[in-house]
Amino acid sequence: MIRQKIPATPSIRRLPQYLHIIRQTQSEGYEYISGTVIAQELNLEPIQVRKDLAITGITGKPKKGYPVAALITAIEHFLGWDVVTNTILVGAGNLGAALTGYQEFQYHGLHIVAAFDVDTAKIGSRIHGVPVFSIETLASHVKKLDISMAILTVPSSEAQRMANMLVDAGIRSIWNFTNVKLKVSENIIVQREDLTSGYALLCVMMNSTREARIKE
Amino acid sequence: MIRQKIPATPSIRRLPQYLHIIRQTQSEGYEYISGTVIAQELNLEPIQVRKDLAITGITGKPKKGYPVAALITAIEHFLGWDVVTNTILVGAGNLGAALTGYQEFQYHGLHIVAAFDVDTAKIGSRIHGVPVFSIETLASHVKKLDISMAILTVPSSEAQRMANMLVDAGIRSIWNFTNVKLKVSENIIVQREDLTSGYALLCVMMNSTREARIKE
Repeated sequence: MIRQKIPATPSIRRLPQYLHIIRQTQSEGYEYISGTVIAQELNLEPIQVRKDLAITGITGKPKKGYPVAALITAIEHFLGWDVVTNTILVGAGNLGAALTGYQEFQYHGLHIVAAFDVDTAKIGSRIHGVPVFSIETLASHVKKLDISMAILTVPSSEAQRMANMLVDAGIRSIWNFTNVKLKVSENIIVQREDLTSGYALLCVMMNSTREARIKE
Repeated sequence: MIRQKIPATPSIRRLPQYLHIIRQTQSEGYEYISGTVIAQELNLEPIQVRKDLAITGITGKPKKGYPVAALITAIEHFLGWDVVTNTILVGAGNLGAALTGYQEFQYHGLHIVAAFDVDTAKIGSRIHGVPVFSIETLASHVKKLDISMAILTVPSSEAQRMANMLVDAGIRSIWNFTNVKLKVSENIIVQREDLTSGYALLCVMMNSTREARIKE
């Protein structure tokens, strides 16, 4: 069984935020950043920051903090963001278009090389420079481009069928933006992006603020 | 100080996934669902499921599991999804358009009532039925519609300026889809949606699978 539980999931989720802040610090000319400053910026406990960053193999120096350049390299290497990952996008609707235009991905080595759709009006066009092909040509493109990752942004009703098509074409990992829990074999990696999970957090914060106001 | 740390953040983040599965179970005619089944579906430990669901005030019955209808009500009530939250969307680009068309929100009481943009080509049009107004009319609409929440989907370079405008107009909570850490006063709730955090997880899974394959 290849699929394994990833330890320290919340820590890994926070790494891009650390990277963002540390890169900003570097662009401002600083060579060191203290864990306390990072903690303040992200509204976390300093001990949490130290634990999170330790998984990348870097520890801070007393009184100086973390060496900025080495920390960036360590996080990028840990995440594999120091190499380019070519990916395809399946479903060139609004969300798909938003992702092709998402500037941030270029800093993470993520390169969307082709998009696929069933809409003949879209096929042959380009979205943010990414060519849109017919879904019928998926398998041949995946083979030709030697792609192993796909971003899935189709309507929920099409999600499982498209996932099957992707796996048959040789895709090994799927970033799933649909609300469907895909049924795929255990050796396929799926990361589902659930937009409603952040909304749940926002709602709980809104509710507790409301209650705090009522109690005042 | 109103802003507070929300305990059990990962648990709250998982509640929408529970809700999705439990609703599906209900639609299939079941009255009870076992914590073990939920755990299997979500690839979690059963103890974790019990802990997560306990925050909504519901506990399972031995051998029967959780009463489906009561559990749905409890989760929805805990999240405040049993009442309608009207919100506005600022930035009617691709991501904004994707969110207005996101079917799932209707199950969570989230109702996007108006969108705002600077693009005169979009002003006066409708996106998935949501009218697009000029950003100049933001304050008057927020007041008239009695809105306290906004979804921010503008380019990063505009994010802070728009956030200031929203707060001045009376908005109390912002669902921030930009990569900017907004500087707002402590009584404003901000939930930032970081698309790259899920990608970080996916990358770590891809890397560990790759290493597992090399070791084989």
